[in-house]
Amino acid sequence: MDNTRKIFREIKADAMLTESSDLRFYLTGFKSSFGIVYTDAQESIFFTDPRYAEGAKATLKDSFIAVEIAKDLSTVLDYVKSKKIRRLAVPFERVTLPQAAEFKARRFKLTDSMPVFTRAMAIKSENEISLISKACEVAEKAYAEVLAELKEGLTENDVAAMLEYYMRRAGAEDRSFETIVAFGKNTSVPHHAPGETKLVKGMPVLFDFGCKCGGYCSDMTRTFLFGRGDGQAEFAEMYNRVYDAHMLAAEKIASGMSGKEADAVARDYLKECGIDKFFTHSLGHGIGINIHEFPTLSPNGKDALSDGMVFSIEPGVYFEGKFGIRIEDSFMLRGGRAESFMKTDKKLTIL
Amino acid sequence: MDNTRKIFREIKADAMLTESSDLRFYLTGFKSSFGIVYTDAQESIFFTDPRYAEGAKATLKDSFIAVEIAKDLSTVLDYVKSKKIRRLAVPFERVTLPQAAEFKARRFKLTDSMPVFTRAMAIKSENEISLISKACEVAEKAYAEVLAELKEGLTENDVAAMLEYYMRRAGAEDRSFETIVAFGKNTSVPHHAPGETKLVKGMPVLFDFGCKCGGYCSDMTRTFLFGRGDGQAEFAEMYNRVYDAHMLAAEKIASGMSGKEADAVARDYLKECGIDKFFTHSLGHGIGINIHEFPTLSPNGKDALSDGMVFSIEPGVYFEGKFGIRIEDSFMLRGGRAESFMKTDKKLTIL
Repeated sequence: MDNTRKIFREIKADAMLTESSDLRFYLTGFKSSFGIVYTDAQESIFFTDPRYAEGAKATLKDSFIAVEIAKDLSTVLDYVKSKKIRRLAVPFERVTLPQAAEFKARRFKLTDSMPVFTRAMAIKSENEISLISKACEVAEKAYAEVLAELKEGLTENDVAAMLEYYMRRAGAEDRSFETIVAFGKNTSVPHHAPGETKLVKGMPVLFDFGCKCGGYCSDMTRTFLFGRGDGQAEFAEMYNRVYDAHMLAAEKIASGMSGKEADAVARDYLKECGIDKFFTHSLGHGIGINIHEFPTLSPNGKDALSDGMVFSIEPGVYFEGKFGIRIEDSFMLRGGRAESFMKTDKKLTIL
Repeated sequence: MDNTRKIFREIKADAMLTESSDLRFYLTGFKSSFGIVYTDAQESIFFTDPRYAEGAKATLKDSFIAVEIAKDLSTVLDYVKSKKIRRLAVPFERVTLPQAAEFKARRFKLTDSMPVFTRAMAIKSENEISLISKACEVAEKAYAEVLAELKEGLTENDVAAMLEYYMRRAGAEDRSFETIVAFGKNTSVPHHAPGETKLVKGMPVLFDFGCKCGGYCSDMTRTFLFGRGDGQAEFAEMYNRVYDAHMLAAEKIASGMSGKEADAVARDYLKECGIDKFFTHSLGHGIGINIHEFPTLSPNGKDALSDGMVFSIEPGVYFEGKFGIRIEDSFMLRGGRAESFMKTDKKLTIL
C-alpha cells in the first residue's frame, strides 16, 4: 500500500505536512534537497523548487496528484491555510523553532506525526527488504574484493577509498555512513576516522562500513588479523568471546523481546566472561532509509521487536591503546527469528 | 582566535549550548554523530558518548578544558541547571520542538545563537581557506583524471563512482554532496541523479561535484560535448552565453554588493540574451563546512558580500528534453574582488 495513505490514515489531523528528507523520501521515493509533502483526505501534493520539478514529475509514485513549485515553507503554509485546515500533523522532532513560529502565526493546531512514521518505517515492506538485501550484498562483494587486495603499506584512507569505490561500482549510490577503517591500536577507538596509518603484518584490522541502494542502508563490521604477530593469542581469545556473543544474540533474539532483552543476550554473556565493561555501546540499531533508526537494541530499549524489523547486531570490546574487536551483520526478524542478510564468514580470520 | 570564545563573546547570554554537527565541528574541529558543547564565561565542555570519548580527547583544541560523558541532552541540561544558568543561547533553527520542551521544563530563557554562527562562519580564516583550497585542488585533479578516461559505453553511475574514488584517493574524506553526472538530455535536469544512461559520441555531458578536505567543501561544475554531433551549433551558442555570464560575474562581483546585486550581474546578462527564464536557480551559495551556507547570491540575497566569504558562481540554462549547461567554480572574496579557487579551463570543450 502507498505509504502516504498508510501514514495519513493513522494520523488524527485534517492534514499532514512532511519536509524532512528521510520522511519525505519514505512518502515519495524521490530525493531532493528541498521539498514538502502536503496531504489531506482529498489530495497529496509534492511542493518543490524548479531544480527538482522535472525530476519529480518523472519519478513520483502516481498517488501524488501534482507536483507544484514552492519557494519555501511559508508559500506552502499559505496554501494549507487557504484550504481551511485547522489540525495539522508534523513530525515534532524535525520541527525547528522558526518553523514552529510560522505554524503559530497561522494558528494551526499541531499534532505529532513522528510516532506514526517511526512505527511504520520500522516494519519493512518486501520492496524495502530487497533494497536492504541488495545494499548488504554490495557491501559484502566490496569487502571480499578489498580483502584480496590488502597489502602492507596501504593506509587506512587508501583502504576506505577502495571499499567505497568497490561498493559504488557494484551499484551503491553512496556509503551509508563514514567508513571506518582502523589498523593496529586504532581499532580500540569505536568510531575511528581513517587516517594515514599504514598496514603492517600482524596488525588487527577493523572495517565498519555499508552502502545505500535505492535509498536503503546496509551496515557491516569485520575485525581480523593481518597475518600472525605479537599479541595474537590475546586477540584470538577476546575475538572468540565477541564471536560467541554475536552468535548467541543471532540465535536468541526473537520477535516479542524488548530492545533491552535483546541487548542483554550479548551483554550478559560478556559479563560472564568478565569483559562487559569493555562493551561500551549498544548491541544494535534499526537500519532503513537512515543508518540509525528505531528500534534500539540497548539497555534503554523499551519497545518490543517484531517481524519485519531490520537492525544490526554488533557486540564489541575495546581495550584502549591495545586493540578493539567488533563483529556486525545486518539482520531482519522473520517468522519470529533473526536472520542475517550477510554470508561473509565471522570466525576468527588471520589473513 | 579560538572559535568558541569568538562566538561566545558576541552572544548576550550566561551560557551557550551547541549540538548541531556542523556548528559543533566549527567549535571543536572534531566530528562525531553525537556531542554537545557547553560554554560559559569560565569553561567549555564537550559532552559526548563513550564511542567518541577517546577520539575527542586526542583531537580537541586545547581551549576545551574537558571531555565529559553524557548520554543525552537531558543529562547536559541538568548540568547547566546546576550552574544556575538562566539565559541560554542555542541555535533556534536547529532546536526541535521536543528539545524546546526540555529547555522550557527547566525554565531557561533562550537567546538565538544562530545569527552569530552564520556571520562568523561566513568569513573564513586562513586555515579554512587553505582547507577549501585543498578540496578544490582535489576535485580538479579528479576531474582531469576522469576526462582522460572517458569513453563510449560508460554509464553515468560509472563516471560518478570514478570521480568520487579519484577525489577520495587524492585525499578527500568524502564527496561534499551527491555527485551529478548527466549525459545527453539528462543535462537539462539541474539536479539529475546519475543512472544507467550510457555515454555516446556527440552527447553533452555535465559534472557537478565536489569533496571535503578537513571538513570543508569544494563545489565545481563543468559541461562539455563528448565529441562532435547533432545540435552542436545550438549547444555552442548557448554555452558561450553561459560562459560569458560566468566570466562577467567573476569579474564584476565585489565586496559590498548585496547577494541580489551579485546574482543580477549574470541574470541581467542572460536577460539581454533572452534566455534568463531558463536560468531557474540562484547564481550561487556560500560554501564552507556545509555545501550550502550563508551568503546566498540570488534575487532574495539581501546581505552584503564581504572579504573572506567563499561561494559558488554557477549560472546555468536548462532546455527541457534537449540539454542543460552550467559552469561553476568556487570563489573567495579577497581585496574586494572575487578570485576563483579553480584553474580548470571553462571555455567550450569538445572532447
